[in-house]
Amino acid sequence: MKDIQSQKDTRHVEIQKVGVRNVHIPMIIPEKNGNVQNVSAEVELNASLDSEMRGTHMSRFMEILNKYSKITLSYESLKNILSETKDALKSSSVSMNIKFRYYIEKQAPISQKKGLIDYICGFKASLDENFKTILHLEIPIITLCPCSKEISEYGAHNQRAYVKINVEYDRDDVLWFEDLTHDIEKLASGELYSILKRPDEKAVTERAYDNPKFVEDIVRDTTIYLKSAEGAINFDVECESEESIHNHNAFAYVNFGI
Amino acid sequence: MKDIQSQKDTRHVEIQKVGVRNVHIPMIIPEKNGNVQNVSAEVELNASLDSEMRGTHMSRFMEILNKYSKITLSYESLKNILSETKDALKSSSVSMNIKFRYYIEKQAPISQKKGLIDYICGFKASLDENFKTILHLEIPIITLCPCSKEISEYGAHNQRAYVKINVEYDRDDVLWFEDLTHDIEKLASGELYSILKRPDEKAVTERAYDNPKFVEDIVRDTTIYLKSAEGAINFDVECESEESIHNHNAFAYVNFGI
Amino acid sequence: MKDIQSQKDTRHVEIQKVGVRNVHIPMIIPEKNGNVQNVSAEVELNASLDSEMRGTHMSRFMEILNKYSKITLSYESLKNILSETKDALKSSSVSMNIKFRYYIEKQAPISQKKGLIDYICGFKASLDENFKTILHLEIPIITLCPCSKEISEYGAHNQRAYVKINVEYDRDDVLWFEDLTHDIEKLASGELYSILKRPDEKAVTERAYDNPKFVEDIVRDTTIYLKSAEGAINFDVECESEESIHNHNAFAYVNFGI
Amino acid sequence: MKDIQSQKDTRHVEIQKVGVRNVHIPMIIPEKNGNVQNVSAEVELNASLDSEMRGTHMSRFMEILNKYSKITLSYESLKNILSETKDALKSSSVSMNIKFRYYIEKQAPISQKKGLIDYICGFKASLDENFKTILHLEIPIITLCPCSKEISEYGAHNQRAYVKINVEYDRDDVLWFEDLTHDIEKLASGELYSILKRPDEKAVTERAYDNPKFVEDIVRDTTIYLKSAEGAINFDVECESEESIHNHNAFAYVNFGI
Repeated sequence: MKDIQSQKDTRHVEIQKVGVRNVHIPMIIPEKNGNVQNVSAEVELNASLDSEMRGTHMSRFMEILNKYSKITLSYESLKNILSETKDALKSSSVSMNIKFRYYIEKQAPISQKKGLIDYICGFKASLDENFKTILHLEIPIITLCPCSKEISEYGAHNQRAYVKINVEYDRDDVLWFEDLTHDIEKLASGELYSILKRPDEKAVTERAYDNPKFVEDIVRDTTIYLKSAEGAINFDVECESEESIHNHNAFAYVNFGI
Repeated sequence: MKDIQSQKDTRHVEIQKVGVRNVHIPMIIPEKNGNVQNVSAEVELNASLDSEMRGTHMSRFMEILNKYSKITLSYESLKNILSETKDALKSSSVSMNIKFRYYIEKQAPISQKKGLIDYICGFKASLDENFKTILHLEIPIITLCPCSKEISEYGAHNQRAYVKINVEYDRDDVLWFEDLTHDIEKLASGELYSILKRPDEKAVTERAYDNPKFVEDIVRDTTIYLKSAEGAINFDVECESEESIHNHNAFAYVNFGI
Repeated sequence: MKDIQSQKDTRHVEIQKVGVRNVHIPMIIPEKNGNVQNVSAEVELNASLDSEMRGTHMSRFMEILNKYSKITLSYESLKNILSETKDALKSSSVSMNIKFRYYIEKQAPISQKKGLIDYICGFKASLDENFKTILHLEIPIITLCPCSKEISEYGAHNQRAYVKINVEYDRDDVLWFEDLTHDIEKLASGELYSILKRPDEKAVTERAYDNPKFVEDIVRDTTIYLKSAEGAINFDVECESEESIHNHNAFAYVNFGI
Repeated sequence: MKDIQSQKDTRHVEIQKVGVRNVHIPMIIPEKNGNVQNVSAEVELNASLDSEMRGTHMSRFMEILNKYSKITLSYESLKNILSETKDALKSSSVSMNIKFRYYIEKQAPISQKKGLIDYICGFKASLDENFKTILHLEIPIITLCPCSKEISEYGAHNQRAYVKINVEYDRDDVLWFEDLTHDIEKLASGELYSILKRPDEKAVTERAYDNPKFVEDIVRDTTIYLKSAEGAINFDVECESEESIHNHNAFAYVNFGI
């Protein structure tokens, strides 16, 4: 059976990335407490293609992803996915992008009721001469507008916002979604919860009013936090606020070497 | 050239709807002020198919939609689209669904600065023995939580929310997006604006704190309004609030005969 | 602490549905083989609200959902979720809607390579005087156009399409996602796979060319199948085809008593 | 009234981007034929913020966008939007991102029936010491798999795919969406149309079978085309194919200096 993909290509165009995308597949993610969490991931996996080769072999990406959907994800397994892809496709560089919802239990501040909050989490990894891994995390928070509080006789507009970070790291045992969400939520006007009874709602409301923050404040405070976070090398941070007084969003973005 | 679609079908299954969907096409919408607005619509157009006929003729839906993308939409033109589709496809019933962003200028409450707010608007229409038209409208608003205000010493959580209505009407000159948005926004804790200077932001903040409303309050007040709105026959109304203190939404829904 | 929600309402408007939506939460789904699958679900849970009561108690929905996120979903547990919600909120009717990606292993037709296919699955359930459950399932398939095949000297346009069904059922041990996907995929022009080697790709290509089907054919054949499926009471079925020759979709829809 | 945004910030964190996003606003786009097209755009506009300043002034972004929603977009007006934003916010760099559906009339190959095809188009522009503009364009096409054609006795799987390009250019009168779509569609296995009668469908089907192309082929051919396109400086090109035989997509990406 003829292998069209392996035909020699004469167009002299190297392709930086060719592969699969929008792959929905289960993944197994280690939790900080030693357990694992079964997640439903959306994945892209790609490889470079030399200018002389007509096509890649798409089925190999899927064979590798199906294999690793049964293995707990780690710094080592990310490296292995990329390394096996690089070998299978004789590529000079490969990269992948994984996103999933990850659940963390949080307790309401007063009633101590426990409930799950969902975070969009993920990993980006690439391998050429070097291996590079980036953790991705989106944290829902409350922003309460300092300007609105200052100029109004009472009240202040507030809303749901998202802190989105990408952090390059070089060891697998330092950065945990659990720690990052815990620490970064503290930097917001307020935190979100799954279950809030009335005494909790009072506490959350008053805390937000006591901690007015612009999106600019949040990216700055998160920048300062990540600069000192053990294990973090480079990073970027964005805060996007779904303004309650507008039908558009406000955002701020800091890039620190990523 | 053989016409496979016109083959006789022997499976004895009538198809209630067959047609095109996710059609992106320009439409011309009349404004209340006498002008028209060019919108970018997403459209579904379908027809019933008798059990004896194998397939519909998909190109005819598109010929009709392309023709009407150049004609100002009205009660009459909606009827004509459906009537021509019914004839072209020899159907007993046809229906369509149109959605688009529609822009209305609003002035900030104090500075009087003018800016455009975008609303998701649309029409649903059907024709069998009867012709029926439904107007669809989604209005962004502020909800400020009455419970949070009452139990907290200061502040109150608030957020962006959307009021979504479907209103069956029987004349084309009574219901205007401009009137409906104007009237329904007044029923919320607060209104959204494109441009707000500081004195405006103070006014919007204080007005929301003075008008705490649950999603339940908003669907009830909108129900009372729509019951008395001239031209409206049946309707439903939903309010969905993107809670700032949760990573999920709260909603309420009232159906009045639709 | 004052309970604003429990205030008496005097507007005389009953609310059919009030509750939470866009709740992302893990669920445990039984597999046909006796195992369970951990899924990431998006959930709506709502209850009716009498005209005399001002507001519902949103935290109770979340307490119930958090409790049932740890319990394997079944006909009985769906009933219990609704029954507990009905009691907790003193409602006359409650309903819920659950959606998640569910993974089923499929073998390539020739190489027998195993890989996971993702299906959007779910349940809708309601409880007033009666309990009603509906299974929801979206199956990706291939449609190959019979008209294109017939009129062309060679080739035929084909594309990815989705069969979407809702089936009302009254026992929990009869309808399995595994069986429904297996049977309905056979009714399409062709099936989708995760991993296809070249001999597989040849088989899939030729099978699709041998089985040209319109969206109309697929909803009719699925209707005939579901009418005779044990455990199914009422249903609807839709096939939406992402036409390769158009930038819009074609679809057909049959409603059988749902 | 106190101006909290203008407070001195002591955290020593410069913010690269702060501004508004998800702004839906009408824009006026010049057509190649000399007319203009009213589009519904989604816009981001942002500016850098010095480390000493606490916050930006969000209303100024919206004042500028509302002003330019009434002015035909051009190389000059893009520059003016950024230049006015830079001045208004005393920033060292500003950038924007505009996306909209743009409609181009195409004639069916045999019947010559005219219909509109929708393309996702846009512009990215930035201004610091230099002004840079990038045109964005997404073109729906057909890909027919060369491998599937070669190894199968008859037929070949094909599907809808999208070619997505970003092209940096330095004059406003050279690159037209009309020319780019016209030229790049020729490089695909086949083109999409709004209205196809049967003789057209035969022509489109056979043409695709005569022109099998991988995503790799399409990004290479588009790369060669863009390298020689007058007015284009740097660019990238991606082709993403919604594989009919898989529930995931295949893609290829070439970056040429962008």
